[in-house]
Amino acid sequence: MDKAEAARLVVAARTRRGLTWAGIAEALGTPLVWTTAALLGQHPMSSEQAGAACALLGLDETVAESLQQQPSRGTDPALMADPTIYRFTEALSVYGPAIKELIHEEFGDGIMSAINFRVDVERRPDPDGDRVVVTFDGKFLDYRW
Amino acid sequence: MDKAEAARLVVAARTRRGLTWAGIAEALGTPLVWTTAALLGQHPMSSEQAGAACALLGLDETVAESLQQQPSRGTDPALMADPTIYRFTEALSVYGPAIKELIHEEFGDGIMSAINFRVDVERRPDPDGDRVVVTFDGKFLDYRW
Amino acid sequence: MDKAEAARLVVAARTRRGLTWAGIAEALGTPLVWTTAALLGQHPMSSEQAGAACALLGLDETVAESLQQQPSRGTDPALMADPTIYRFTEALSVYGPAIKELIHEEFGDGIMSAINFRVDVERRPDPDGDRVVVTFDGKFLDYRW
Amino acid sequence: MDKAEAARLVVAARTRRGLTWAGIAEALGTPLVWTTAALLGQHPMSSEQAGAACALLGLDETVAESLQQQPSRGTDPALMADPTIYRFTEALSVYGPAIKELIHEEFGDGIMSAINFRVDVERRPDPDGDRVVVTFDGKFLDYRW
Amino acid sequence: MDKAEAARLVVAARTRRGLTWAGIAEALGTPLVWTTAALLGQHPMSSEQAGAACALLGLDETVAESLQQQPSRGTDPALMADPTIYRFTEALSVYGPAIKELIHEEFGDGIMSAINFRVDVERRPDPDGDRVVVTFDGKFLDYRW
Amino acid sequence: MDKAEAARLVVAARTRRGLTWAGIAEALGTPLVWTTAALLGQHPMSSEQAGAACALLGLDETVAESLQQQPSRGTDPALMADPTIYRFTEALSVYGPAIKELIHEEFGDGIMSAINFRVDVERRPDPDGDRVVVTFDGKFLDYRW
Amino acid sequence: MDKAEAARLVVAARTRRGLTWAGIAEALGTPLVWTTAALLGQHPMSSEQAGAACALLGLDETVAESLQQQPSRGTDPALMADPTIYRFTEALSVYGPAIKELIHEEFGDGIMSAINFRVDVERRPDPDGDRVVVTFDGKFLDYRW
Amino acid sequence: MDKAEAARLVVAARTRRGLTWAGIAEALGTPLVWTTAALLGQHPMSSEQAGAACALLGLDETVAESLQQQPSRGTDPALMADPTIYRFTEALSVYGPAIKELIHEEFGDGIMSAINFRVDVERRPDPDGDRVVVTFDGKFLDYRW
Amino acid sequence: MDKAEAARLVVAARTRRGLTWAGIAEALGTPLVWTTAALLGQHPMSSEQAGAACALLGLDETVAESLQQQPSRGTDPALMADPTIYRFTEALSVYGPAIKELIHEEFGDGIMSAINFRVDVERRPDPDGDRVVVTFDGKFLDYRW
Amino acid sequence: MDKAEAARLVVAARTRRGLTWAGIAEALGTPLVWTTAALLGQHPMSSEQAGAACALLGLDETVAESLQQQPSRGTDPALMADPTIYRFTEALSVYGPAIKELIHEEFGDGIMSAINFRVDVERRPDPDGDRVVVTFDGKFLDYRW
Repeated sequence: MDKAEAARLVVAARTRRGLTWAGIAEALGTPLVWTTAALLGQHPMSSEQAGAACALLGLDETVAESLQQQPSRGTDPALMADPTIYRFTEALSVYGPAIKELIHEEFGDGIMSAINFRVDVERRPDPDGDRVVVTFDGKFLDYRW
Repeated sequence: MDKAEAARLVVAARTRRGLTWAGIAEALGTPLVWTTAALLGQHPMSSEQAGAACALLGLDETVAESLQQQPSRGTDPALMADPTIYRFTEALSVYGPAIKELIHEEFGDGIMSAINFRVDVERRPDPDGDRVVVTFDGKFLDYRW
Repeated sequence: MDKAEAARLVVAARTRRGLTWAGIAEALGTPLVWTTAALLGQHPMSSEQAGAACALLGLDETVAESLQQQPSRGTDPALMADPTIYRFTEALSVYGPAIKELIHEEFGDGIMSAINFRVDVERRPDPDGDRVVVTFDGKFLDYRW
Repeated sequence: MDKAEAARLVVAARTRRGLTWAGIAEALGTPLVWTTAALLGQHPMSSEQAGAACALLGLDETVAESLQQQPSRGTDPALMADPTIYRFTEALSVYGPAIKELIHEEFGDGIMSAINFRVDVERRPDPDGDRVVVTFDGKFLDYRW
Repeated sequence: MDKAEAARLVVAARTRRGLTWAGIAEALGTPLVWTTAALLGQHPMSSEQAGAACALLGLDETVAESLQQQPSRGTDPALMADPTIYRFTEALSVYGPAIKELIHEEFGDGIMSAINFRVDVERRPDPDGDRVVVTFDGKFLDYRW
Repeated sequence: MDKAEAARLVVAARTRRGLTWAGIAEALGTPLVWTTAALLGQHPMSSEQAGAACALLGLDETVAESLQQQPSRGTDPALMADPTIYRFTEALSVYGPAIKELIHEEFGDGIMSAINFRVDVERRPDPDGDRVVVTFDGKFLDYRW
Repeated sequence: MDKAEAARLVVAARTRRGLTWAGIAEALGTPLVWTTAALLGQHPMSSEQAGAACALLGLDETVAESLQQQPSRGTDPALMADPTIYRFTEALSVYGPAIKELIHEEFGDGIMSAINFRVDVERRPDPDGDRVVVTFDGKFLDYRW
Repeated sequence: MDKAEAARLVVAARTRRGLTWAGIAEALGTPLVWTTAALLGQHPMSSEQAGAACALLGLDETVAESLQQQPSRGTDPALMADPTIYRFTEALSVYGPAIKELIHEEFGDGIMSAINFRVDVERRPDPDGDRVVVTFDGKFLDYRW
Repeated sequence: MDKAEAARLVVAARTRRGLTWAGIAEALGTPLVWTTAALLGQHPMSSEQAGAACALLGLDETVAESLQQQPSRGTDPALMADPTIYRFTEALSVYGPAIKELIHEEFGDGIMSAINFRVDVERRPDPDGDRVVVTFDGKFLDYRW
Repeated sequence: MDKAEAARLVVAARTRRGLTWAGIAEALGTPLVWTTAALLGQHPMSSEQAGAACALLGLDETVAESLQQQPSRGTDPALMADPTIYRFTEALSVYGPAIKELIHEEFGDGIMSAINFRVDVERRPDPDGDRVVVTFDGKFLDYRW
């Protein structure tokens, strides 16, 4: 079973069983965004993680095997046009060069790793309307020959 | 003077005068990423802000006028392939659908605004190597007819 | 069942039962364009809305479940070349920069929200030939850091 | 002088003279969006219109000649990514197929003309925040062999 | 049944029954190019037309229903590279701007409608080799606000 | 001088001198669309034709030399989005496969030449609005090994 | 059966039966490249040719029918990246403008026909390593109005 | 001076002096297509070749230096749409997979080199119209680990 | 069976049987990267190699036949965005022109063959973290007419 | 001065002075590929390095300043089609998925860094023709949350 099919089954089972991503992550003891991304096919799970997730979701062994496979990572560009995802792309198009300037000013010539890296999604209450706060947190890697 | 030309003059003057983006932002009393983005041409500055920035950088009135113009926002796709910027694009390609799921789980059907929005770039010391922490912080907007 | 398949079943059932989009919207008590878009897969329906629509169309529970799912929004670019849709794209290509200028002149720096937003389609009788009047009506959002 | 250069001069002169698009349109006695689009290079002006506009803006005869030329219409795709313009593109991607269904339901097989056509941009006061209301108003054309 | 599948069945049945497009058009009493395009999925047929065509071709009711559906018009770009079709694309790339100049010279600012429009394909005998003559004939529409 | 620059000078001189394409073609004794296309840079002119055209337009020898050069044919895709040109592209997208079927039915396996080829643009009076009639007329070439 | 499927069956049967393209072409009495291209779906075969080919390959009537259909010609761009095919694309990118210059120098303004055209593939022994010699041989067509 | 500018000067000088590519190649003692391609910027010339070519064409030392530079090879895709060049691209799209099959049948797994390679362009008289014969002749390279 | 399907079966069988690519290559006596690429569909295997691989993996004759077929080489661009593969693309974008300069400086005008070519992947222990060392090793081919 | 212009001056000065990239690298005491890439604009140089390079090449201070600027890295896609560079792209298209498999087999889930990274280009004598050996050597980074 390929990971796209496994992801479809996970999403359907999660709705059917009334589970939340947060609940699944807590049950597995794994970080929230990592767990969601892994179940959507972007990270390989360990045998124990895959087994626990499938038990929770009522999915069989073929799904668990798929969740353990090494993924080919990335998202179909068509899905990146969804407005909820697109706003991040737009923010990068507007602020990307400024972020680059500030990384170089603070750290020198290098990048934020997207591998030694974590993302968090949080709600921050605000009287003018609650806010979505997404944190990209990666190790700085300097260009080093 | 178009904003791309103004940005080139700002970048050159900043190096020549030995100024930092952080120093300029502090002098103007404006947020760091906002200030950098505005000087790179992505936000209009007020007359006072543009004047103060140009005084600091030793640039003339034509630059100050350009900085006050309403921009057409966005970055040339060729520049988005720079590795320091690309890592963010890659992170979105890997984590975008997970972030979408979690926004919907926490907030319901809607988006993080990229307009009522701020970005922060920080260094977080870490014994395994300091980390680049970039926070996207936008008001949640629900689909509302 | 994915939303594209559900939309195909809705379109076929609508023809088979001789229903109009306007009739379905009226029966559901929901706005016309919203209802049509939701049944084509662009908005999640509530359980009640999906149930009522499927009862009207003679479709089963799997369609109703699909209609309640959170969509990944957007249209296949190939379908955007259909002449009836393309004329809107052309109008944006001709008038988009003028609309941008006038939004900034009237409201300042910001955008029309596409989330806190509604569309209406109406016929306006005209002796020279009736007219299609499509209104885009979105909350103004100012760039606010 | 090509129309892009003429548009740059118009935009600069309008700021320099403190004129509004609405004011220019009123002085010329022409519709607001039409006037703005024409001055940005998307419609040819009559000799009188071009002359009056240039007198108002303090621009010379070469600009006036350019404004009368037949344009090659359309906007550079790079500019369509500006957030203020992009929201309209997004709305079409979400609602385009629904609008198409409703045009066919109401009028039969055909299109809204983008030639026998007008656009209006208005502000509608609203206690929850004023709204941008953009109306696309085109003659219905039925497929007729 | 979608229109692409219906078109495949029409093409196969036409060969199997030894019918010509001209013969089908004559039997239906409809114009030749229109009839061919409609059977290939680009125009909706009336119930009578679809019924008559399917009777002639020996196709069942599901095809007839499909032929009556409102199409999403346009051709897969991959098929536009076929040499017989490509020559028209090339001719437009070479002569398009000249045709535009001449339409404006003769009619003023406007377009040839592609909706109130017909195409004809004819053979013109010629001693140097017979010629394909394709006529595009559309109502002139002037830009009218 | 490259042909794009020569074309700009021709277009400007034509307006300045109040000449029509039809008038230039008549003076040169060459077909209307051919003449217009050649002056826009899509066909090489003979020395006599180029000289006569430049005399008429009041352009110097460098333009005349440019008009005689062998062109690299074709139009910038950005210009093909102009509505007056786009309607032909749309018509090909809708009717291209039907035209292909009919060429094969009438002539067998082959193409309409775009080289041994002419185009004509005419106005046909019509009580419902005059019509633009564009005829593509090319020699049939059969696939012949 | 579509031509892509027929081609897959031909390729498999050829291997299974231990036939060569050269052997099939010889048995059919048709040119080598033409025969190979036709069996891969790029030319329609006559009833006799298709029947003989299928008899040789042990394929049934549905394949033979498919081989007689009029093709939509051209190759999926993804397959054009195969290195054996790509070298020809690269050669055109390097030598195309030179070939164009020389065609014009020798023949005047026109093209090599790709319709009244043949290709040959041969091996030429060479002490430094045998050579692939591919000849494109098409009738010259002059631009003729 | 970059090679594109040098090529423009070569093309203009060749016309001005009434030289042919064949004449230049003969004077230099170099193959015809190679010489044309080199003067158009696709191959580096030796100092002697560049000097001789510039003497013949009446061009100065800066052109000669440019002709000796190592090129970045390839042609702007926009120029590949010129009909005289496009016919070769079309022929590859139609016959590429057949050519690949025949190279593998005759030589095994490998490619025709585009580096150890020559092209010839010839006119072959033919009573039905003379023919353009272009020969691609490259060393076979087998996949060899 | 096409090679993509065969590759999926190979990958699944390898996991199921707990085999490594290195173990398979050793058992076959073939180079490691070559073996992996061949089993993923990029090289044809000999009958003996395919048979031995399938015996090891517990796959049947239809897979073995597929592995012997001549491939159409190359990878779906969507898979090239996977971060593990993308880093190589990025390195080429940063260092490609420098590598080109150095090949020309050392060898003259020519290329590294990608056909007479091998790749090796190795781990090099390093106290700062082990390193991935990938060697591209191809015969130099000089441009030779 | 932007880095593209600086690179053009460096390349011209290197030829004019008869220097090699290897000689410049040796004089600077910096690695060969790094030095070449830096002088072509892909790495910032220190003030000492830039000064030494410009002294060697006879270039002035404005070039030296440009060489010290932080680059936006990456190469114009048009230049990636040059055959000498393209062979590496092709090799990645053929071997990329195999390299990915072997990195995961040897190291687990992660990537080769393109930042903590070096490239070497060497000539390896070989009786069958000397070989270009390019080594990509990057630190392994494991996906670590």
